[in-house]
Amino acid sequence: MAVYTEVADDELARFIDRYGLGEVISCKGIAEGVENTNYLVHTTQGRFILTLYEKRVRREDLPFFLGLMEHLANAGITCPTPVRDRNGEMLNELAGRPAALVTFLDGMWIRRPRPEHCQAVGAALAKLHLAGRDFALTRENALGPKGWVELFSRFEDRADEVCPGLTDDIRRELDELLPIWPKGLPAGIIHADLFPDNVFFRGDQLSGLIDFYFACNDYFAYDIAICLNAWCFEQDYSFNITKSRALLKGYEQERVLEPSEREVLPILARGAALRFLLTRAYDWLHTSQSALVKPHNPLEYLRRLRFHRTVRSASEYGLETVA
Amino acid sequence: MAVYTEVADDELARFIDRYGLGEVISCKGIAEGVENTNYLVHTTQGRFILTLYEKRVRREDLPFFLGLMEHLANAGITCPTPVRDRNGEMLNELAGRPAALVTFLDGMWIRRPRPEHCQAVGAALAKLHLAGRDFALTRENALGPKGWVELFSRFEDRADEVCPGLTDDIRRELDELLPIWPKGLPAGIIHADLFPDNVFFRGDQLSGLIDFYFACNDYFAYDIAICLNAWCFEQDYSFNITKSRALLKGYEQERVLEPSEREVLPILARGAALRFLLTRAYDWLHTSQSALVKPHNPLEYLRRLRFHRTVRSASEYGLETVA
Repeated sequence: MAVYTEVADDELARFIDRYGLGEVISCKGIAEGVENTNYLVHTTQGRFILTLYEKRVRREDLPFFLGLMEHLANAGITCPTPVRDRNGEMLNELAGRPAALVTFLDGMWIRRPRPEHCQAVGAALAKLHLAGRDFALTRENALGPKGWVELFSRFEDRADEVCPGLTDDIRRELDELLPIWPKGLPAGIIHADLFPDNVFFRGDQLSGLIDFYFACNDYFAYDIAICLNAWCFEQDYSFNITKSRALLKGYEQERVLEPSEREVLPILARGAALRFLLTRAYDWLHTSQSALVKPHNPLEYLRRLRFHRTVRSASEYGLETVA
Repeated sequence: MAVYTEVADDELARFIDRYGLGEVISCKGIAEGVENTNYLVHTTQGRFILTLYEKRVRREDLPFFLGLMEHLANAGITCPTPVRDRNGEMLNELAGRPAALVTFLDGMWIRRPRPEHCQAVGAALAKLHLAGRDFALTRENALGPKGWVELFSRFEDRADEVCPGLTDDIRRELDELLPIWPKGLPAGIIHADLFPDNVFFRGDQLSGLIDFYFACNDYFAYDIAICLNAWCFEQDYSFNITKSRALLKGYEQERVLEPSEREVLPILARGAALRFLLTRAYDWLHTSQSALVKPHNPLEYLRRLRFHRTVRSASEYGLETVA
């Protein structure tokens, strides 16, 4: 992990005491999560994840993230639920950082997802979209089309260091995509980062969703497009239509896509691939060679983007088009 | 952590299955331990620590370490107990590395130990010494006096980069210490690294000892000397005789020191300080600036060493000398 804040035993005991969760039995720092420091804390009353928010998370976004998790959990989505302290607060301070305690979620993420996992993910995504509809707070998608342009401008002159020609690839894609980016699609709360490592399973049963720190308001179908990129490509970058069909089928079991959403799915999928290409290329250029967390290879998303550029209709993702 | 090996969910499930420990409920990489990769694994049958041994641990030492933990646990010492698989094996392979599963130990380490903690540590150390007496395997202390000379020779020409004059300090100490290093003291299995982060407490109750990966055969009193260095200095490097008195009192509740051991305690304490000064100075010079795990400051042990050089008799550590 990139950042790691130490918490002393007595500080922790005082912190946990605010929540009335009994005695701390054990506390282990977790070697996951690049953005924040996470501890798995056992108390006499159960297991919890303690998160200390490091610099990359904006403090003013925390009430949205924590409020959303609580809202979704109340609506029946299995996700970490923030614990409120004796004063009703979800957000406190520990070791000089904003800190929150959430319930521990059983399960493991699946390294080699099969179509049945994709179907479960599709269904869970749709349920999340429906459950988020009456959440009061909103958060703009900082990594939507406007954000892409801004982010690209910060490394445009160095993009060819990632791979020769990447500057032109990205510029051409932005030029093509921005004018045709859809308007007025069904929108609401989206997860925006529902990759395999954020979905827990016990056996083949989906047991929960985690990491809501990219959640925001945007098109529901864009969230699906992110999942198509995240779940349906094989290691050799081939697109597995059996998986995407399963994912879309799972989604439509809970929420049927509108014709307007179906039609633009290839455009949204290009946008989603571009979004991860941009952030990964940026991280690639801005992570020191010796950092522990190796940045993901951005070019995986150039490959995905090229695939989506060849797609002519949503039926190529396995979506059965309504006559 | 310096090294971190990923384990896939399906690999893990197969591995755990060898032990007949039920279904894996969760698995979190732990951000502790510089030498090895550690996971906290929950199965339907309990909590375990899964350790993947990385390069710094010699594979041929593993039967000693694992056998010792099992032996001590059977003798009533609360320490991680290796779990044997269906074939009776404690050592297996996972993700291309030697791997073992040990029981999880509740408790947390104490950042600011008080005298009562030191007394509990002293007693636990003596119990460990007694319990190790009938352990069949042996392991030479690679970081004993012979090892110091060898280790120093590897960075002697650069020691002044740590601090000007360090080369002379160490050379003089070796010249003085080696000829007077005691011979024939009571010996057996020692922990050799019983620092506060290797001792767990629940509240003020000692709940277990961990990290036996420096354990070896050496003088019992040398292990005490290591603890005097590890537990009895304050942040300002002042020596807290109340703590050392408590530690020695705790020890002697379980095992009374022989006169030969008492007499040489100041010499052993110098040796212990020198041992950590040497390894820390070596790590200081050989860790890249950008490494995640910042090496400990070696000079803390130069300060300790200088203190021990002023000590004339064990009574200055609070040990009541027998008339």
